[in-house]
Amino acid sequence: VIIIGEKINATIPAIREAIAARNEDFLRGLAADQEKAGASLIDVNVGTGQGGSSEEIRTIHWMAGLVRDAVQCNLCIDSADPAVLRAGLEASQGRAGMINSVKATEKNMEEIFPLSVQYGIPVIALAMDEKGIPKTEAGRLDACEKIIRGAEAAGVPAEHIYFDPLVMPVSTDISQGMVTLQTLRGIKDRFPGAKTVLALSNVSFGLPRRSLINIAMLQMAMFLSVDAVIINPLDSAVMSSLRAAEAVMGRDRHCRRYARAIRNMQTGGE
Amino acid sequence: VIIIGEKINATIPAIREAIAARNEDFLRGLAADQEKAGASLIDVNVGTGQGGSSEEIRTIHWMAGLVRDAVQCNLCIDSADPAVLRAGLEASQGRAGMINSVKATEKNMEEIFPLSVQYGIPVIALAMDEKGIPKTEAGRLDACEKIIRGAEAAGVPAEHIYFDPLVMPVSTDISQGMVTLQTLRGIKDRFPGAKTVLALSNVSFGLPRRSLINIAMLQMAMFLSVDAVIINPLDSAVMSSLRAAEAVMGRDRHCRRYARAIRNMQTGGE
Repeated sequence: VIIIGEKINATIPAIREAIAARNEDFLRGLAADQEKAGASLIDVNVGTGQGGSSEEIRTIHWMAGLVRDAVQCNLCIDSADPAVLRAGLEASQGRAGMINSVKATEKNMEEIFPLSVQYGIPVIALAMDEKGIPKTEAGRLDACEKIIRGAEAAGVPAEHIYFDPLVMPVSTDISQGMVTLQTLRGIKDRFPGAKTVLALSNVSFGLPRRSLINIAMLQMAMFLSVDAVIINPLDSAVMSSLRAAEAVMGRDRHCRRYARAIRNMQTGGE
Repeated sequence: VIIIGEKINATIPAIREAIAARNEDFLRGLAADQEKAGASLIDVNVGTGQGGSSEEIRTIHWMAGLVRDAVQCNLCIDSADPAVLRAGLEASQGRAGMINSVKATEKNMEEIFPLSVQYGIPVIALAMDEKGIPKTEAGRLDACEKIIRGAEAAGVPAEHIYFDPLVMPVSTDISQGMVTLQTLRGIKDRFPGAKTVLALSNVSFGLPRRSLINIAMLQMAMFLSVDAVIINPLDSAVMSSLRAAEAVMGRDRHCRRYARAIRNMQTGGE
């Protein structure tokens, strides 16, 4: 499974502060640590909802350069603002590996798909439209259908679409875990050429010991052969559970990655 | 999911010693603790491979009485020896809830099915025959086919068959996790009237931090709607992960059982 490291995200208070203070060492270290822990893409999100587009464009220029120099792997440029995405992709200088994200609205698809074509890289596609996140599997699959048609029209190949079935908190609606998993299965059935990705953490919102809920969701999604996950690779409980799932599924020859994850857990790092 | 508590098993050295010393308080406590932790059946296995049938028959008489008095829930009488099963069922005095186990040999089915009919209780049926545990899903499903035909002939209804697809260590054959899970799925498809059960712990044999592997297997089996699991309910990591899986699957209204499992984890008991 492709691991996208989620830690460099300005919605996390400590990251927002590090960005405001231009704390380069801290952010470089966070990027490098995620790669060392197993991430093959580093998500980069500088959106604070303040300061507007031009401020965020300046920030992502600086941040993309920083992360690019700190790791060997590629960047996943993450913004709801197409202008910020464009700036981040440019600043990545050939090291952008994924765009995060597009959704099923005409305007959004018109702005984002050309970036995927221009850079020749995949895009994460959220199973939602202008009305928000559909509550049902059928509604989310309809959004996916719109996206796959829009992608085709724009010249984005299906294998460059990473559908995110979207996760809602089970604490507010207990049926939402299965809606997500059924949507994931539905995407695999209906769009076999496309890929899938899951950002987990929202599922456990409002519950104690959130990582236990995240891990249950992760292992079930892995059983459904999800292609990529957006997680905190520095959370050793999550990472060792991910490796355990790979071992159970026969995707870890001689259980080597699992054994290494356990060693790292015990020593607190590589 | 039905939780069968696995701790009273003479293959565990501490239990063998407690049996030899007739340590009633310890064993009563172990039964009661498993029930408190969520078990709805207490497995009772006195087989040490020593002393022969008559010694085990005496022991299971004593043990079944002990467990019966310590808990409100029913017993799962566990032996490879039909004479010991018969003695345990009798000693349970109406409190036997399950028989563990039968396999796909004529002789074994001839001896065990009549006990299931006589007591009107379900029997765990291992997906193996006289040649041992088949390496493939197809081989295990063939064994299940023999069992379901034998059960029908003996008058055991399908819903009284709890098929165990059997778990082998992934450390010696990395494909075995998926063979078990595919067999579980195959049983659900081919014998929809029957039930399923999984005894987990063998999957992690030879690996570090075994409970992480057991939990991954457990959560995938739960996603496949396994009906019962044989686990150690006193292992709070396993129990809280089981409750997390139920929450993600929408089977824990308001996440109450999950929240309680977390509280118990933190306080170290009910």
